[in-house]
Parts: sequence; C-alpha cells; structure tokens
Amino acid sequence: MARIVKKFGGTSVGDVDRIKNVANIIREDVEKGHQVAVVVSARSGVTNELIARAKAINEQPDEREMDVLLAVGEQETIALTAMALHSLGIEAISMTGAQAGIKTDLAHTRARIVSMNCERIEAALGKGSVVIVAGFQGVNDEGTTTTLGRGGSDLSAIALASGLNADLCQIYTDVDGVYTADPRIVPKASKIQEISYEEMLEMASLGTKVMQARSVEFANKFNVVFEVRSSFDTSIPGTIVKQEVSSMEDVVVRGVALDRNQAKIMVSNIPDKPGSAAQIFEALGKANVCVDMIVQNIGRNGVANLTFTVTRDDSKRSLDAVEKVLNELGGGEVAVFGEVVKLSVVGIGMRSHSGVASKLFASLADVKSNIQIISTSEIKISVVIDEEGAEEAVRAVHTAFGLDKAEA
Amino acid sequence: MARIVKKFGGTSVGDVDRIKNVANIIREDVEKGHQVAVVVSARSGVTNELIARAKAINEQPDEREMDVLLAVGEQETIALTAMALHSLGIEAISMTGAQAGIKTDLAHTRARIVSMNCERIEAALGKGSVVIVAGFQGVNDEGTTTTLGRGGSDLSAIALASGLNADLCQIYTDVDGVYTADPRIVPKASKIQEISYEEMLEMASLGTKVMQARSVEFANKFNVVFEVRSSFDTSIPGTIVKQEVSSMEDVVVRGVALDRNQAKIMVSNIPDKPGSAAQIFEALGKANVCVDMIVQNIGRNGVANLTFTVTRDDSKRSLDAVEKVLNELGGGEVAVFGEVVKLSVVGIGMRSHSGVASKLFASLADVKSNIQIISTSEIKISVVIDEEGAEEAVRAVHTAFGLDKAEA
Repeated sequence: MARIVKKFGGTSVGDVDRIKNVANIIREDVEKGHQVAVVVSARSGVTNELIARAKAINEQPDEREMDVLLAVGEQETIALTAMALHSLGIEAISMTGAQAGIKTDLAHTRARIVSMNCERIEAALGKGSVVIVAGFQGVNDEGTTTTLGRGGSDLSAIALASGLNADLCQIYTDVDGVYTADPRIVPKASKIQEISYEEMLEMASLGTKVMQARSVEFANKFNVVFEVRSSFDTSIPGTIVKQEVSSMEDVVVRGVALDRNQAKIMVSNIPDKPGSAAQIFEALGKANVCVDMIVQNIGRNGVANLTFTVTRDDSKRSLDAVEKVLNELGGGEVAVFGEVVKLSVVGIGMRSHSGVASKLFASLADVKSNIQIISTSEIKISVVIDEEGAEEAVRAVHTAFGLDKAEA
Repeated sequence: MARIVKKFGGTSVGDVDRIKNVANIIREDVEKGHQVAVVVSARSGVTNELIARAKAINEQPDEREMDVLLAVGEQETIALTAMALHSLGIEAISMTGAQAGIKTDLAHTRARIVSMNCERIEAALGKGSVVIVAGFQGVNDEGTTTTLGRGGSDLSAIALASGLNADLCQIYTDVDGVYTADPRIVPKASKIQEISYEEMLEMASLGTKVMQARSVEFANKFNVVFEVRSSFDTSIPGTIVKQEVSSMEDVVVRGVALDRNQAKIMVSNIPDKPGSAAQIFEALGKANVCVDMIVQNIGRNGVANLTFTVTRDDSKRSLDAVEKVLNELGGGEVAVFGEVVKLSVVGIGMRSHSGVASKLFASLADVKSNIQIISTSEIKISVVIDEEGAEEAVRAVHTAFGLDKAEA
C-alpha cells in the first residue's frame, strides 16, 4: 500500500465529464489498495468569471474579499469530485484548504504556506476514505480564507505530499510531461523521464509553462518527488522531478527552451557620470520592470552603452522610465528592439562537462543565428537572438546536443 | 445609533447591478450612524445550477458534499457585496456562516441552528465595519459546512438579529410586505402594517409565500421583531411582524389566504372493521403524504366514509396507498377530486369576537360557493371549496370582513 497525492488542474476538471474521468483515474489507485489524497483546482474559466464579476462591481477589489470570492471555484470542484467518486462506490470526503490544515501567512491573493496540520486528512485516509482537498487556498491565523496566487494548486499538492509524507505526488495536467524542447517547434523532441529540481526550475523560469517555479522550489526544499503527467491519456508515464542523482550528469543538456516574450532595450551614449547606470535601474525598479539580462560596455570616448532585456509587456514602461532618466542626465539615447527571443540550454551535466558554450555557439553559427547577449549560470546558458530563424536555431541546438529522439 | 440586521434574498442580489443597489440601501443606514450586519443569499439561479451539476455527476449526491457545494453560492455573494460597499467608501467585511459563529446540528441540507457566537461580528461592528454574512449556512461540531434548508437565509437573519440583540431586523424581498389578500386576486387588498407571529405563521402555512414558517417560529421563540419589505422600492415601509399586542385584536380578520395546491380524496364504503381508518392514515404516512384536513362520518348501515385533503403533488401517491389498504380490507372505493382550493381567514381577533364563522359562511353562500370541508383553529377558519369561482369567493370574503382598502 502506498500513499499517493494526485493533483488535477482546471482543464482536467473542466466539466462534468472531465470530473467523472478524474474519478475513474482515482479509482485505479483505490482498487490497488492505495491511500489517495487529491488536490483539485477550479473548473477552467470559473476563476476568470469571478474576477470579471468582481471588477464589474469594484475596479480594485479588496484582496481579502477577492480571496473569499476566488476560493469558491475550488470549493465547487471538491464537492463535485467527491460526488463522482461516490457514484463509483468509493468513499470520499471533501475538505477546504482550512479543513485540510493548510495554514498560510496573512498576505491575501499571494499567501505563502507556513505550516501543514494533516491530522484531519490522516484520520480520513485511515478510515479508508479518499480525501479531496481544495487547491490554491489556505487559512490564516485570523481564520480567514487566503489564496496562494498563480500555480497555487500545484503548491497545495506538493505541500500536502510533504505533510502526509506521501510516497508519490502526481501532477496531472494537459501536457504529458516535460520535453527536451517544445514539440511544436522540434518534432524530434522527446519526453524527459527524470529531471532535477534545479533543471526544472530553470525550465520553468524560461517559459516552459508546465509549472510555476515556486512549486518546484517548495518541492526542492522539502524533498518531495513528483511526477508531471497527462490527465487525458493516463496510460503513459510522465516526467519525474526529484533531487539530482549522479547519473543525471551523463546528460549534458536536459532541454532547450525558447522564450519569445523578450524585448531588448539599448541605451547608448549615456553621459559618463558616477551612478548613471544605477539611476537607470533604480528608475526601472520603481516602474516595476523586471530586468533580465544586462550587458554594459564603456566606449573609448568614456561614454557608456547599456543593453538589457525585459518582457515585451514591459518594454513601453521601460522606455518611458529610461527616457526620463536620460533627460535628467542630459544626454544619451534609448531604443527598443522587440523582435528578439531568448534561447537557453539547461542541464546539471554542464557543471562537469566543458565545451557546452562552444558547442552552442557553433550550432547557432551553423544556422546563421547572431548572438546578441549571452548569460550563463551554473546549469544554464541563455542567448538572445533574432526572432527570425529562432525555431530553426532551436532545432539545430537540439540536434547538436544529441537530444533528437531515435527514429521509430 | 441603532443596530440593524438586513437580509437580501436571491433576486435582490441577482446580478452585479442589483448588488450595487443593495450596497446603496446599506449606505443609507451607515450614513445615519447605525451598526449594520447584512445577510445575503446566493444569486438567484446559482443554487439550481449547482444542483443540476451535482445531479449530472451523481443522481443521489451525498448530503455532506451537497452542503459544501451549495455554500458556494452565498460565499460568492458576500464577497461581491463587500466589494460593492468598498467602492462606495464604506468599510465592510464578509463572513461565512462558520466565521459568523452560526453553529448547527449535524443534519446536512436541513440543519438546525443550535447556537450563535457573535463575538467576531461584534468586534467588526465595533470597529465601524459593515459585516456581510453568508445566509443559509452554518458549521457543525465537526467543523463541516452545513446548510439550513429552504428559507435558510431568513433564518440566518433572524438568528443573527437575536444573537446581536439588534434593534431591527429587515427582510428585503421581491414583495413589499404582507397583504390582506393576494393583490392579483383582490385589487382592493391592502398591506398589513403589523401582524403577530401567530398570524404570520398561519399565513405562511396557507401558501402565502413571503416567508417559511420555521423562520417565523424562530423569531417568535426568541422574540425578534422583523420587517418584511421591498428591495426594489425602499421608500415604502413594509410589514412589521411581532408579538401580539392587545390593539391587534381590534381587527377580527387580518387576511384572507387562498391555497390552490389542494386535492380532496374521498374514501367511501370502508368496511366497518376496528382500526380501518388508522390503517389508511398509517399507509399515507409511510408514503410520505402529509394529510391536511380530515372529515369522517359513519353511515346508517355502519360503513364509514372518509374525506381528506393533500397537496396536488401527493394525490397520486395517496390514491395508490389507499387502494392498497382497501384491497387488504376487502372493500370500499377511493376517488381524487383535484379541482378544489382552500380558502382561509386568519386573525388573532377571532379569539374575542364571535360570529366569524357565520359571517364567512354567509359571504360564501352569497357567491354560491359550496363549502365541502371546514377546519378551524383558534385564529383561523379554513374551508375547502371548488376551484371554480374561488377568486370571486376570496373577494367576497375580503369585503365581508371589512378589509377592502378605502378608495383613494
């Protein structure tokens, strides 16, 4: 007998038939004699409907009340999922985040989990009941409902798996795992069987939308092994995310990611005054712009050039903020280049293998992709390149690092 | 400064605009410096949607999970109503039934309130905040959400008014008060300014759909004075429901009610065996039929005839149950007469005034309405008459008891 935590996202519980499908997936584990706790999200679309209704009433709804409102979505799903299990003759009981013992801090709409008290779930599991827990929500010390922000249901599942000391945590989603590259771009991309938390974190931050980074961080911190898998085709195994093991280093590059939501901002001829760069970044910070990669160089004549990347949504705000600073400094120009992307290779094997950068650069040169900015971390190399030709570049890099799957 | 509990039903909070309207009604009291606690129902239609979804998943949904599901409707409304108040610059905080301290017994879907702990509401009111409480729901000793069944939100409001020792409890609804008769039948019907709990209870049980009897009983038990009034036209006062005062006896008949949901069942030539009537009513009880009025007479030849009334929905089940008993008894016939109605006059003044029955019968005779069954209580006389001509009969009785409003 194993203890399993299963999490189903909004599309997996999107309507009555999908909820019945989820019940059937759960049944398989119950029939094998496993203890099963399930975390569910709101039906897809419900949260947006609720937000729209709130905004129609108050453009800036109070965060406490927003949490009361949004918690409704998951509360509906837990009851319906329990009912679906009952109709299969399976004992099941629903619990809200509060009932499940998920305690959070006071920060409404983006609460952090501070503790788990799993007594009530343990008792129900002990009686042979499946427990259905509302994801995305918890309760604070004031007894008020809180929500965990984006990716909150994944976080609930990981926290529950940790609190229950589960043998397995399965994150069911609309993709069947983590791939070496986006299969729509790279037809030869293959599913990764095992990936380390660190690699998964880099993939998440690079725009591979399987999971929010915070859930992976939480799993890493509490050493929760989890599997990302499909709720539509349950016959195929997904991707296991776990602590790094030495054999993982045999693979130099685990995957290739492409982030299209990138814009490059070039600031040139900045007057050579102490702290001018600092002033620019301070202004960007105040404008709530998150700067990603930065390159600075000083020309011969003493004027500095600065290049950085931001998300495309932030490019206009960045431009405005920088222009204001340049006016104060009395010189310099700023320009936005929107048509760039970030290509990254990720792999913990990089630590022990040299020559990754040169192989990456060579494969990009082969397809005439011009590298504009480079940024490296211990397990990742990212380059900014033109959007044009970027997909070809991804395929070339994928091939160069031996990631193409064998022909069938 | 007064302390006021206001309750708004499903149609009063039916959409975004209605919720804004409710916020404006609340504002008037806040601006007068009153402390205000508000009970709201689910938006009209939401509860039915949720039930439909549950039935699509499980034809006999578990009652515990049904309560978890249905509580969602009110939880949405409390958050939206609080947000609407915020946008008017009014401090407001939402509370679920559990947070509001509404403790119930364990009976899911029809729980009874066992205690109120209003500390949390008191604290919020003390800070100058409006408190918005989810109606229809509470929490049991196991910390699980319960719902109070039909008319539950009214009950929440009355219980809250009692627990908070409120000066006033206002039940806002889609009618503007209790009338001497249905104004669609009797154009000269007028709104009753004050009515006793007992009269209100009789009116409720006679099909005047303003409020469920249990809420009136609760108000009577805890001596909560409440007002039924319109949420659409707030300028007009409603009907005050309170303990009987002696001046109320000046009015002999407070109102005339017509209940169309009546069927008459006649059982004739029942074999004269001991306990045969008891057997019939036992069978009806087992078939979950609620019998209203009963007449029995013994004919000269020793065979008994039995006539009783049930709701029309129950007539088929009644017929089946009685037929089965007659088969066992070896004789007798049963027939259903569906086209009858019950006309009632209600008033605590009857206790001290004689001649009510004779005046009622005379006015019915005037319009040639034939009385089939009569039933009396201390403050009520009901008669079963033909459906045909019933509306004319109501108007005649209304006039006979001096209830017609003066011409403008």
